[in-house]
Amino acid sequence: MFKLGLRAAFGRSRFVRPVIREMEDKDFMQNFMYHIPTKVHFGRGEIGKLAEEIKAWGTRVLLVYGGGSIKRIGLYDRVVGILNENDIPFMELGGVDPNPRITSVEEGVKLCREHKLDVLLPVGGGSVIDCAKLIAAGTLSGSDDMWGIVTGKAAIGKVLPVITVLTLAATGSEMDTSAIITNLETQEKTGPSNPGMRPKVSIMDPEYTFTVSRKQTAAGTADIMSHALEVYFNNNKGAFLQSRFAEAVLKTCVAYGRRACENPEDYEARANLMWAGSWAINGLLTKGSPVGWSVHAMEHELSAYYDIVHGVGLAVLIPHWLRHMLREDNVWKYVEYGVNVWGIEESLPDMEIAERAIEATGKYFRDMGLPETLRDVGVDDSRFEVMAKRAGAGLGKAFVVMDEGDVLEIYLRAF
Amino acid sequence: MFKLGLRAAFGRSRFVRPVIREMEDKDFMQNFMYHIPTKVHFGRGEIGKLAEEIKAWGTRVLLVYGGGSIKRIGLYDRVVGILNENDIPFMELGGVDPNPRITSVEEGVKLCREHKLDVLLPVGGGSVIDCAKLIAAGTLSGSDDMWGIVTGKAAIGKVLPVITVLTLAATGSEMDTSAIITNLETQEKTGPSNPGMRPKVSIMDPEYTFTVSRKQTAAGTADIMSHALEVYFNNNKGAFLQSRFAEAVLKTCVAYGRRACENPEDYEARANLMWAGSWAINGLLTKGSPVGWSVHAMEHELSAYYDIVHGVGLAVLIPHWLRHMLREDNVWKYVEYGVNVWGIEESLPDMEIAERAIEATGKYFRDMGLPETLRDVGVDDSRFEVMAKRAGAGLGKAFVVMDEGDVLEIYLRAF
Repeated sequence: MFKLGLRAAFGRSRFVRPVIREMEDKDFMQNFMYHIPTKVHFGRGEIGKLAEEIKAWGTRVLLVYGGGSIKRIGLYDRVVGILNENDIPFMELGGVDPNPRITSVEEGVKLCREHKLDVLLPVGGGSVIDCAKLIAAGTLSGSDDMWGIVTGKAAIGKVLPVITVLTLAATGSEMDTSAIITNLETQEKTGPSNPGMRPKVSIMDPEYTFTVSRKQTAAGTADIMSHALEVYFNNNKGAFLQSRFAEAVLKTCVAYGRRACENPEDYEARANLMWAGSWAINGLLTKGSPVGWSVHAMEHELSAYYDIVHGVGLAVLIPHWLRHMLREDNVWKYVEYGVNVWGIEESLPDMEIAERAIEATGKYFRDMGLPETLRDVGVDDSRFEVMAKRAGAGLGKAFVVMDEGDVLEIYLRAF
Repeated sequence: MFKLGLRAAFGRSRFVRPVIREMEDKDFMQNFMYHIPTKVHFGRGEIGKLAEEIKAWGTRVLLVYGGGSIKRIGLYDRVVGILNENDIPFMELGGVDPNPRITSVEEGVKLCREHKLDVLLPVGGGSVIDCAKLIAAGTLSGSDDMWGIVTGKAAIGKVLPVITVLTLAATGSEMDTSAIITNLETQEKTGPSNPGMRPKVSIMDPEYTFTVSRKQTAAGTADIMSHALEVYFNNNKGAFLQSRFAEAVLKTCVAYGRRACENPEDYEARANLMWAGSWAINGLLTKGSPVGWSVHAMEHELSAYYDIVHGVGLAVLIPHWLRHMLREDNVWKYVEYGVNVWGIEESLPDMEIAERAIEATGKYFRDMGLPETLRDVGVDDSRFEVMAKRAGAGLGKAFVVMDEGDVLEIYLRAF
């Protein structure tokens, strides 16, 4: 199916672009299966639906959350109040880290098994939801090797139902099938995807994101944009509708990301970002035009080694990733992006539109207050080669086929 | 919630526009529940998934279809072959009309009840699917009054599973909750919406639409555009993402409708139209910015009295509907439409952009070979008042509040 082009050697001048893969039928909308059954209650006050949804799916709850933010905004009290008023027994797993650890999953599985808990209720952002998804998969797996569940060594069978209450517009975990987890021992950050882990219900109240800091708001917006960009940049010209849907998500981020940073209680901005975050990665955008991810792979290596915010790492890498892949053969996609998302005048030469689109992307991240270089976020260059080797191993199906040499070059340019 | 504006009297000059409703919080993305669990197998050859999907949902099938087109393209033989090879017992209900009749529903319910059929398998376009949905609802209703099911007099409880094989990009019935049916006795065309009627699975192979005639292709495209336009034109400025999604659907119709008319075996065009048709009406576009439909209401009156193709009637009405509603207060929406869908230069005066957008819409329909006036499609003006009265009764929540006077004026201008 895929004819791989010649890998370009590392060390080439910046004007020599890597060869993109040539895909048979690349202009052909690929066959796909679409099935996104998550039920979403969206809007202020929708937490009122929580009890009936829990009762539809189970009887005993594991409430999963992170640091203190859900307590500060009163959401913890509200959720616990709802559970108590409705006589729903529950236990708690708090303190899940922003880059959730496998140890939290192990702890949660132990609780679910010992106390026969049958519904996972993560209240928080993507980290908390991802942790809950893996607990849901791990509990019924029959295995005691939770890292094996994460890496695929142990199989995922039945999965406990997951009902989320979202407090951050970013990862899209509230409507997707995957979960990312960190193993501090091995310095790995990875995770499985399984239809059973897709949340059954997600409650999305934009007001819960009013207290998200400027930095986290900007990082979350960059994360959403990265989800859309990594699938939007593909070699398939035939999946037209999907590309227009991706542009809808991207335009929404551009319209509201900075606005939410500047006015954190802007409901319209928070609502649009929250809903865009779900659609960026629930699967719609990539159905019919599959493509391998690349920026996330590069960023996961960064945050496996350094304690940096995922979306910040993405924002630093994205402009360099875009520029590194650009060539005459694929400039058409950059032109679509520049004209349709950034409103760049389409009568300009293609390469100029592409450069302007890349520049606009980087400028938007900076305008939201995000740092521009890896150095700025405390990353040193001592581990670039090992990280590049790991990230580069999985880029054979990316928009542009890349290897460790390409990744190293992107790290160096972003440094 | 709604403060209704003064209804404008019929007979005003064309420069006096009806008063739009003023909606509290109209700039506020409204709360919504999103739940679209239909599983879609999309692409050539996906009919291969049919047997396993049927077995997942039931044991005995009612195969529903229309005229001979599925026999001509070999699809009937393929489906019957699959059912036989997999030892799935089935009965048939063929000959469902393009504007399906309540008598077909009655016949189907009788078959399902007598032979204990438990899965509906419509193979065809929206008419066939709608008919099957109502059989699915009617069978388990306990009622013998099928027209009562349609009008809401009899309640819909449990609904048999519906699995569709789609052969026409138009109504979106393959992924939505509603069904439209005609009662020739009372000359009514109406139907219920119920989550249970949403198909469990839809198999969508664009190649099945290769033999759709130029006229039906154009009409189907107009139907899809109408679904998107009727919800896109709403007074809510806060549901930004939803408007961009609607534009994605509209741009797809503009890119491929005419192309499919001119080259019926263009897979890319057929695939994009087919997938756009599902998303135009499955609910995504209107979540957060609800608005009453109006063109469909006006057209349903036409096709209740005259044997015209639904999409053709819509195409004739849409430009007049758009022009009738235009005023200074709502021109912003026309500007969005003109700039984002039709690429009209945004530096032009707003009213000029609006007029150009309306003109471009009408021209596109004509370019696909669709007729321009009601007279052209054999509608006379003898029943305009009674039709306007019926259609006008339900337009209190439309983009512009309208009454029978408005509808009459639109009919007359379209005549």
